[in-house]
Parts: sequence; C-alpha cells; structure tokens
Amino acid sequence: MAKPTPLSGFPEWLPDGRIVEQHVLDTLRHTFELHGFAGIETRAVEPLDQLLRKGETSKEVYLLSRLQDEDSAGRASSEKQLGLHFDLTVPFARYVLENAGKLAFPLRRYQIQKVWRGERPQEGRFREFIQADIDVVGAGELPYHFEVEAPLVMAEALGALAEIGLPPVRILVNNRKVAEGFYRGIGLDDVEGVLRQIDKLDKIGPDKVSELLVTECGATDDQAKACLALASVSGSDVGVIAEVRALAESHGAVTELLETGLGELEALIAAAAERAPGVVVADLKIARGLDYYTGSVYETVLVGHEQLGSVCSGGRYDTLASDGRNTYPGVGLSIGVSRLVSRLLSAELVQATRSVPSAVLVAVASEDQRAVSDAVATALRARDIPVEVAPSAAKFGKQIKYADRRRIPFVWFPGAAGEDGVVGPDQVKDIRSGEQVDADAGTWEPSAEDRWPRVVPTS
Amino acid sequence: MAKPTPLSGFPEWLPDGRIVEQHVLDTLRHTFELHGFAGIETRAVEPLDQLLRKGETSKEVYLLSRLQDEDSAGRASSEKQLGLHFDLTVPFARYVLENAGKLAFPLRRYQIQKVWRGERPQEGRFREFIQADIDVVGAGELPYHFEVEAPLVMAEALGALAEIGLPPVRILVNNRKVAEGFYRGIGLDDVEGVLRQIDKLDKIGPDKVSELLVTECGATDDQAKACLALASVSGSDVGVIAEVRALAESHGAVTELLETGLGELEALIAAAAERAPGVVVADLKIARGLDYYTGSVYETVLVGHEQLGSVCSGGRYDTLASDGRNTYPGVGLSIGVSRLVSRLLSAELVQATRSVPSAVLVAVASEDQRAVSDAVATALRARDIPVEVAPSAAKFGKQIKYADRRRIPFVWFPGAAGEDGVVGPDQVKDIRSGEQVDADAGTWEPSAEDRWPRVVPTS
Repeated sequence: MAKPTPLSGFPEWLPDGRIVEQHVLDTLRHTFELHGFAGIETRAVEPLDQLLRKGETSKEVYLLSRLQDEDSAGRASSEKQLGLHFDLTVPFARYVLENAGKLAFPLRRYQIQKVWRGERPQEGRFREFIQADIDVVGAGELPYHFEVEAPLVMAEALGALAEIGLPPVRILVNNRKVAEGFYRGIGLDDVEGVLRQIDKLDKIGPDKVSELLVTECGATDDQAKACLALASVSGSDVGVIAEVRALAESHGAVTELLETGLGELEALIAAAAERAPGVVVADLKIARGLDYYTGSVYETVLVGHEQLGSVCSGGRYDTLASDGRNTYPGVGLSIGVSRLVSRLLSAELVQATRSVPSAVLVAVASEDQRAVSDAVATALRARDIPVEVAPSAAKFGKQIKYADRRRIPFVWFPGAAGEDGVVGPDQVKDIRSGEQVDADAGTWEPSAEDRWPRVVPTS
Repeated sequence: MAKPTPLSGFPEWLPDGRIVEQHVLDTLRHTFELHGFAGIETRAVEPLDQLLRKGETSKEVYLLSRLQDEDSAGRASSEKQLGLHFDLTVPFARYVLENAGKLAFPLRRYQIQKVWRGERPQEGRFREFIQADIDVVGAGELPYHFEVEAPLVMAEALGALAEIGLPPVRILVNNRKVAEGFYRGIGLDDVEGVLRQIDKLDKIGPDKVSELLVTECGATDDQAKACLALASVSGSDVGVIAEVRALAESHGAVTELLETGLGELEALIAAAAERAPGVVVADLKIARGLDYYTGSVYETVLVGHEQLGSVCSGGRYDTLASDGRNTYPGVGLSIGVSRLVSRLLSAELVQATRSVPSAVLVAVASEDQRAVSDAVATALRARDIPVEVAPSAAKFGKQIKYADRRRIPFVWFPGAAGEDGVVGPDQVKDIRSGEQVDADAGTWEPSAEDRWPRVVPTS
C-alpha cells in the first residue's frame, strides 16, 4: 500500500498535538461544569429536512447513503434521508423537543463534538472540526440575565487557556434590538437586509457597504451614512450607550425597541466590566449573518490574530425550537475548537512537555527479569503515576534513548543482584539532569509538574 | 414542528445517562494513560478504497456525498469517494502509514471515538456507537509480551468500573497458532474455513458445526470430532496447556506451530493468574471471524450478561499495515463502550447522583440582588466547587424545588439585611437533610462525595 496523504479539510494531529487539543477540551469542559452546565452528546446524523431548516447552510451538508442498500427502491423511500450535522444547534433543538418532557428547564447544557461541512475541498477550510457549545434554554421564557452570563462563562473558559499560551480574547457584543430600533427609527424597515450588508464591513469596507445599502436596501445616502455611523461605535464602558443614544437623537431615531436594547447592552457592559475587565467590548457593527438572533449577539477574536476571524460566536434567539405547545428561547455561544487548536499548533504558541502520558520508563535488565519491571510499574501506577515498561531488554543506553525520544523524564532501574547475590536498591534517573538516586516504588513521587504531560507556552 | 422521534440504532442519553457514559470514558482514558498509551483522534471519514480492504464489512459502510456538488460531473471523479469509518483499526493503520516518519515505535496508542455501521435499521443494532481501542504497534517487529500486556490493561480498565456497578468481566483468550497447529497436525489445511465454522459454536451448537466441518471444510467425522474436542477445552490455569497437548498427542497432531502457540498461551495464562486473578480464561473455542489475527485472540463477556456478546475483543496481527518498506505488526483490543453503557443504563445497574454538575444552587432574594448571588458563585467556583445561580428570584420554596428536581444537594442563601440594616451571615442548606447552617463562601466546602456528580451502583 502506498503512503496515504492527508485529506484536505480534515485536520489530524500527531500525539503531542492531540495532548494540546485534549487539554483545551478538558479546560473548556471543566469551566462549563463549574458553571453548572450539563454535558450532552447527540448523534452525528439528523434527518435532512431538519438540517435544511436553515436555508443558508444547505450547500454544506454531507448526505449519507448505505453502500449496499439491498432493496434501495423499497427501503430508501421509507427510510429518512440522513445527513451529518453541520453545527450543534440544530441537533440540540431537536434533542430539546424530543426529550422536553424529561428535561428540566431552564436547561444549561454544553456539548463538545465534531461537526461536518461539505465545503469545496479546494477552499482549504475545515470540513470536519470540533465545536464546544454552551446554551441556556428556557421553556416559554428566558430572562435577560442569561445573555450576560453566557459570554462571561466563555470569557472564563478561554481565559483559563491563557496559561498555556492562548492570546487574550476580546468578546465583541451587540444587540439586535439596538440595531433594529435604530434602523426603524431612521425609516429603514428591511432590517435583515441592512444587517446582511453591515455584516460585510470587515470584508469590503464602508464605501461598498454604503453603496449596497442604497442599491439593495433602498436606503438614502443619509440613511446609509447613519447606519455606518452606528456601526462605527465601539467601546468597553457604558459611555458607548450614551454615544449611541446621542447618535439616535441626532437622527430623531429614538424608539422604544432601541431603548430596550440599549438597556440590555448597558447591563451586559456593566457586568462584564466588573466580572471580566477588558474582555467584553460593545461593537455596534457586529451583525451575525443568521436571522434567528433576537437580542444579544457575540463574536470573539484572539488579540493579535484578528484575521483568524471569530473563534467563539453566538447570541440570543427567541425560538430555538417550538412544538406547538411550547416555544424554547435560548442564548448560547459556540467555540470553534479546531480553529483555535490549529492556530495554537501552527503558530507554535504552545507545546506539550512530552508526547506520551508516561512519567516513568521502567528499564528491563533482561527478558527473564521483565516481571520485576512489571511489578515496579504496577506499584507506581497504584499511586497514579503513569508508567510504561521498556519494550525490550536492550542495552540501558538504548532504553534511555527510548525515553528521551518521547521526552519521558524518568527511567527506573530495578535493583540488580550484586556479586554477593544481594539485590541492591532500585534507582531512578532524571534523564534531563542525569541525576540518579536510590528509590522505592512504594513511596517515590515525581514532582506535580512531571506527573502528567502538560501544555505550556512555547518559550 | 412535530415532536421528533428517536432514530433507531443511534443511541442518545438524557443528561444523567451522559454523566454515566462520560464517567466510563474518563475511567477508560485514565487507565490507558496510566499505562502510557497516548491518545490520538482520527477524522471520521476514510477513502472508500481504504474502508473496503476488509471485504466482509463492505455492506456496513456509510458513504458520503455533498448535497450540492455543483459540478458533480467534473469534480466528483477527481475527488475520492469518502465513507464513515466502521472501526478504529482501519483509520489507525492509515494514520500509522501516513505519519510513520514522525511517530516513535513501538507506538502505544488509545483512541476513543464514534464509529458508524450502515446496518439495516430494523435489526435494532447500533448504527452509531463509541469504541475505545488500545493497540501497541511496532515497526518490523513486536515482541510477544505485548500480547500479555494488552488484555491485562483492558482487565484493569474494565475492573476500574466495578465500583460503579459494572459486573465482573471474563476475558476469554486463545491463540491462532494453537488452532492452526492442531488443525494442520490432524491433516486439515483449510484453517480459515475451520475457524469460521468453530466461530459459530455458540450460535448453532456442536452438531451443526460438526456437519459444516464435514460438508464445507472436507473434514472426516474423526477430524471434526477432534476440532470440537479442542474447542471444548477451557480453564484459567496452566493445566489447560497440558490438556491441549494431551489431546494433540492422542491425535498424533503435535506440531512446532502448536508448541509455539501453547508456549505463548501458557505465558499469558501464567501472567494473568498473577496480575489479574480470575479474570483471564483460556477458551479454545474463541476463533474471531477476522482473518488477520495471527497470534493471541481475545473476547470479553460481562459475567451474568453473557448473552450481550463480547464487550471487548481483539488480538495479535502480524500486518496492521505495510508500506513496502516496513510492516507494522500489532496487538490491540477494542471496547464497545455504547453497548456497555446501554446495558448499564437499561438494566439500571448504575445511576448518577444528580443530573447536573452543580453542587450548589445560589438562591436569589430579588433580581436587584442578583449580583450578590453571582459574587457568592464566583467565590465558590474559585475553589473548584461547581455552582449555578437560581434562574429567577422566585419564592425560596420554588428555588429549592429547582435544586431538588436536579438533585443539587445544597442551596445557598446570601445574608439578608435585618430590620436594623445589618446584613446577616450567609447560610447553606443541605436539602436532603434539611440542615441549614451559617457559611462563608470563601471557606465553605462540600464533602468530597458531594463536590461533583458521581456514578454509583443502583441500590
């Protein structure tokens, strides 16, 4: 068999890259659980009609078919057409409806899974990647304070990665009610259309967006200018609120909806300034493409890596799902874990201290002494020290090389019988310093730093 | 939208079922890492030609297609046909070949991922499930002692689940060299064919197998009888070895290959008797369907749930993969995690102590006091205590009910101002006992048992 080549868009890591990814996943999960979010996992597939409820994403769906669908004529029609999920929101909405009677609301859930998008392979975008989502979903109603809490949980989760070398994050927030209230206040009723154009600001610049507002959304030059003025407002303190209000007043565009939105945005900015100083910034140009957001919207950039795009996005939606009896409003954010990990690895921001879990390699003096080495390993593992035993009774120099290649810090030598037949003490060698000392497998401990592989900033 | 119904074959759990599954996954991972196995994760898809290298499984593959493959004529032919992996061995073999130059051999790896099989839905078998695999793979060679180690790691991993209520496991082992040596010794050369029939013993019984050995494999009645006699041998001590040897001698069927196999099997039984007493049983009828095993083979049953089939299987293969320059022999086992978890849940063997991570619900006296409750939550989380804040400032009785429904053990009441304006101390109530005491969020600790949800045997 010829050497296989990677599939474009399907990232995979070598073992030490996987240690980095696993550390990121563990850190996110731990933060989510500290905040009382319960983990769920949904199947990878959904019926196609569910996946296509969001029109925009239809082109990204991978469809499934069974290789040998024996009587495809009959059965294929009775079986539902399935596709791989392209996000974790659609499956979560389905899960909520399917299990509504057995779930307790408001439901705080996190979900960390792979998703798939059938992108054209040549675009170099990920076609398989991991998302980490949190959402709080209510039955019938969901108080605003969850819109303050959700991004702060993400700020804490991403902030917990700073110690391994993740750059600081900036969470950019806006509120759909502010935008809609303002647009309607100046006489623009095609709110969706205006948002869609504003969303292009970073890509095509204000001049082109202004043009599109006129040609596509029927705005006058003055209205277009007002939209751009609103989009240019940003800041991390509540002064932003006064700035928007003043702008709206100057256009005679103060509406009740705008005031509601400003009140919400102000509460978020104020809470964030206290609980995550410097992280949350109001940015009135944040539009988010998807039309189901109804309140707060969020995007997140890595400071210094802004061109990477948003690594954590989301917002408030009044209708995650609805089954006729109940409507389920929610608020949530989704971290693009693979995008984050890929950048951490490719920019060499972080590294694992070793490529295997083992803190200790137990040397083997000869194959008929392997049981002695196995017993040492068992004794160390009983005290939660990760250990492997040398694969062969090669010369000790070669066994040390085996450890060194994997950056296993310690090599253990079981005591050998001397000329007098007396078995000497075991010894353990720190192969980084070369220091070798007597040791007892029943009591010896590595330092806390050496026990498990760690992920650290690349120095 | 109508209430969705579950998809047959795609299991999903409610939040407390997921706590059980997550605990099983964490326990397996921890044991694997204690033994120095490095985690890797491969993409979910492989090129179809890779997936079809094992002929038998072709009918189980799910193929992928992109919903809107704009110019399918041109591009589809240049793009490889992709399918979802149906096990973790095929992707691992590909990963080894693809990264051989960057990996250190022998490579100890674990891999815990979902796999998919395009089974006919009406069979009620899982079409999506989680496997947890360990393998040790060498470049060019792999010493026998890894065939002893691998099942003992699995015995420890599954044994670690006994404390949550997993029944004891019995690992049934055999050795292909024994079977092949014996069959050839009695003059049967269609070794694959004989193994395939012997594999059916549990399903169709000895009489039918005997018949098939005669009609399908060209065996005489005596040869068939000898094969069945071999298959009936089992036991957990090395007496088994003598029994097989005596049987072979009585048929004049002692071959060099048989002796090699018996030596290996004896080493495994002896080591297992010492390191995992009572767990490993030699069972000469274990055949394993797949033709790539060349040494030890393993199956594992849950004692008392034998009809569930094997929950952990594997073996030694001389050629996991080959790239012309190197051949990669290996040994590994795979746990069917979903099958295990499904049984734990459906037989109500285990339960989670609560359905959410939170140990504490911080009550909210009134919405304008929410910041006080948030501050308590932050103080508790700073000491790694999982906490959530009440969703609304409802009557305290209702807030306690919120905790009770999720089995959150503690409700925290921030101190309230008395008539004199002096703020009293915070209090925490154990809602199971009703006991309520003064508490300080900077120092209070739940018991170790209450801090995180646990999985315990159903009493």
